[in-house]
Amino acid sequence: MLLSLCLVLQAPATPQDPLAAERAVVTRIFERELADGRSYAILAGLLEAAPNRLSGSEGAARAVDWCRAEFERHGLDAVRLEKVMVPHWVRGEKNSLQRVGDAKPIPMLSLGGSVGTPQGPIEAEVVEIKSRDELAQLGERAKGKLLFFNQPMDPRQTSTFHAYGGAVWQRGSGAIEAAKVGALGAIVRSMTLDLDDFPHTGAMRYDEKLPKVPGVAISTLAAEALSRELAGGKAVRLRLELSCETLPDVESANVVAEIRGREKPDEVVVIGAHLDAWDASPGAHDDGAGCAQVIEALRVLRALDLKPRRTIRAVLFMNEENGLRGGQGYAKQHEHELEHHVFALETDRGGFAPRGIGAVPVMHAELAPLVGLMTPWGCGTLFDGDGGADISPMGPAGVPLGELLPEDSRYFDCHHSGRDTLAAVDQRELELGAAAVAATAFLVADYSGTWPRAKVETR
Amino acid sequence: MLLSLCLVLQAPATPQDPLAAERAVVTRIFERELADGRSYAILAGLLEAAPNRLSGSEGAARAVDWCRAEFERHGLDAVRLEKVMVPHWVRGEKNSLQRVGDAKPIPMLSLGGSVGTPQGPIEAEVVEIKSRDELAQLGERAKGKLLFFNQPMDPRQTSTFHAYGGAVWQRGSGAIEAAKVGALGAIVRSMTLDLDDFPHTGAMRYDEKLPKVPGVAISTLAAEALSRELAGGKAVRLRLELSCETLPDVESANVVAEIRGREKPDEVVVIGAHLDAWDASPGAHDDGAGCAQVIEALRVLRALDLKPRRTIRAVLFMNEENGLRGGQGYAKQHEHELEHHVFALETDRGGFAPRGIGAVPVMHAELAPLVGLMTPWGCGTLFDGDGGADISPMGPAGVPLGELLPEDSRYFDCHHSGRDTLAAVDQRELELGAAAVAATAFLVADYSGTWPRAKVETR
Repeated sequence: MLLSLCLVLQAPATPQDPLAAERAVVTRIFERELADGRSYAILAGLLEAAPNRLSGSEGAARAVDWCRAEFERHGLDAVRLEKVMVPHWVRGEKNSLQRVGDAKPIPMLSLGGSVGTPQGPIEAEVVEIKSRDELAQLGERAKGKLLFFNQPMDPRQTSTFHAYGGAVWQRGSGAIEAAKVGALGAIVRSMTLDLDDFPHTGAMRYDEKLPKVPGVAISTLAAEALSRELAGGKAVRLRLELSCETLPDVESANVVAEIRGREKPDEVVVIGAHLDAWDASPGAHDDGAGCAQVIEALRVLRALDLKPRRTIRAVLFMNEENGLRGGQGYAKQHEHELEHHVFALETDRGGFAPRGIGAVPVMHAELAPLVGLMTPWGCGTLFDGDGGADISPMGPAGVPLGELLPEDSRYFDCHHSGRDTLAAVDQRELELGAAAVAATAFLVADYSGTWPRAKVETR
Repeated sequence: MLLSLCLVLQAPATPQDPLAAERAVVTRIFERELADGRSYAILAGLLEAAPNRLSGSEGAARAVDWCRAEFERHGLDAVRLEKVMVPHWVRGEKNSLQRVGDAKPIPMLSLGGSVGTPQGPIEAEVVEIKSRDELAQLGERAKGKLLFFNQPMDPRQTSTFHAYGGAVWQRGSGAIEAAKVGALGAIVRSMTLDLDDFPHTGAMRYDEKLPKVPGVAISTLAAEALSRELAGGKAVRLRLELSCETLPDVESANVVAEIRGREKPDEVVVIGAHLDAWDASPGAHDDGAGCAQVIEALRVLRALDLKPRRTIRAVLFMNEENGLRGGQGYAKQHEHELEHHVFALETDRGGFAPRGIGAVPVMHAELAPLVGLMTPWGCGTLFDGDGGADISPMGPAGVPLGELLPEDSRYFDCHHSGRDTLAAVDQRELELGAAAVAATAFLVADYSGTWPRAKVETR
């Protein structure tokens, strides 16, 4: 622990271990993080300061201030806010879904961006579809009714993210599809593999050429119950009242800090996560964990006095959940220097035990042996990957993208719901992820060679 | 899902994929388990039937009966009980540790096998040691006192099992070391990396040539508080009262079931876990999860009509926690056929997301490509390993040993404590482990070649 970086990096690269110096640095980072890491305390602090931090809210503003102060407290370089305008959707006070004539509430959350019911509650029969095929076969059956999207995530998928990817069209486009068939609203089964009482919200879209109908998510247990009732041939009438609405855009910010490079300070490795979270969730895994890991990665590198050749820049993006204005804003504001961004690494898949790093194939030859140094901590595998949403706007400029890939079994149990709490995050797992972000960023930023450029399409 | 095994195994092994048939079977097992697995329901059933099941207890007897019935219910072959005599240690009613003159209880559990205080409570000062070195330097300082073992598990270890291995001497041998220096009892910091109020029990030993003094575990937060008090130079007197005792041995049993091999029924692959659990813990991860995976592995293979060349035998061992009589009994009762046991696979590291299989090196050349077929589900890595405690008595006969290796960050948070509940087990993670046990057992049992023998020393 007392060795300085200079001594470590002067350790000769033996033929037996050409990466001896890098291996020693990785070991120092992981051991320090596991013995004396702050990632869990940082996450707890963020959640206490800003338990609800949807873009445009007071909570989001508090999260910005809290993270800037945290970067400053750790003595990092160039701490600053980079302004972006963000959408301001609010849930409002009155939100309810129930069977007509039955006061018992159905566990429900409005989808982010949904219109409300300012003309008064909607009362209508429910029509269920369980697949895109059933949607295509609907004909006139859903006209004047509420369309219930009940295709579960497919548990057979090897990745829960693939299972999510196969089902999330219902949440994202359900209101558009409902409008196309003349339905009055979209009721969507929550995007989770678990059966429980928690509704999971998330973003939805409208087609400006179609009527805007409200969209809500109901818990998976409520979806199962409703489906059983309908299967019995019963007509079910629901009453939906929503006071959510979209207000004018609000000024907000990405929060940025750096460790300046010692040789090539203008070449940049970005490590990123997102500050905003759904209002109905503490957002501990999504993406408080990522923010804590990014802050902690710079803190632990500074605490170990590890100065890489290139600059490592932490970016806590605003508005990943419902607009991506932070990611788009960063790419635009830094357009002139993206050619010197050698890598961008995102962490937005929860604070679970890391399995490895996903990165664009062009990086693999040089990056695989470096990532492989993390094998003793269970995260030394380099997978194909193309980063997350926030860094995607940098892709078209040729910035190679990557992301931290943790164990994913539990992620969607929590995602966008009241279950995404600090208690769902394990301290050691979070620390392993923070160490993986710090080690990967350092190794890429300190690499003596030249990193290849990527050319990918915008998403 | 409707393909029969015969069709699958007749799929030609192409030069592109010589393991095409095996890959198809592995996919079927994992997809069935994830879509329609019963492992979580089995675990819930076992914990409901026998929430406390320490060897010799009524709960242990109920666990035996429940698991036999479960094997029978799934139509497995040769379901039976194999009798073993087990120790019968009971905690008793009166167990307390507190500061003299302070009624507030210190969170504490007697260690398994400890003597009680039948002559009345012990009141004595506390002397703390934080390492083996400090123990060696004690001299006469602990004579007539209570010796407090407070060496934390080392969080820097890459495996939490290594961290446990480096600290557990305090629990296992603390009472012996206390007796050697004339102390009246051993108070041991709980074996966990977490800081909380839960005491973690576990087995301890005595040296028959030394006085038997009581041993207890206190929670890590209580250990930190006690240590701070002592660091302040204050003399701390504690009062310890225990009514635990060891009663005569009791008849119990291992629970056994099989899927008989279609070509070589006398050659056996054992899959094992242990039925007993500490009385003060539901034992969901340790080792209810393993039992559920072993039962479920046979159930899912039967449900898929997968008949391997060799026999797969499930053994739910009794008494892993405080005697290993089940493991020793199995090895002795089956001594004549151990030469035909081609592999024994244990699952006793919790129901967390599986990372791979650990196996003795002699297996690696043949086994690695088969285990590698599980890579899409995150558990395709073959590690060095030598199995767990229950199967270790088969080692000297040359049976190659292995074990399921799950993610280990959270294991000791729960281990041997009241935190080891069903709620701490994730359904999908448990299912992935059950599928990994089923797939590994099937691939080894169905292998067309000859498995090498191991020669290892008894532990």
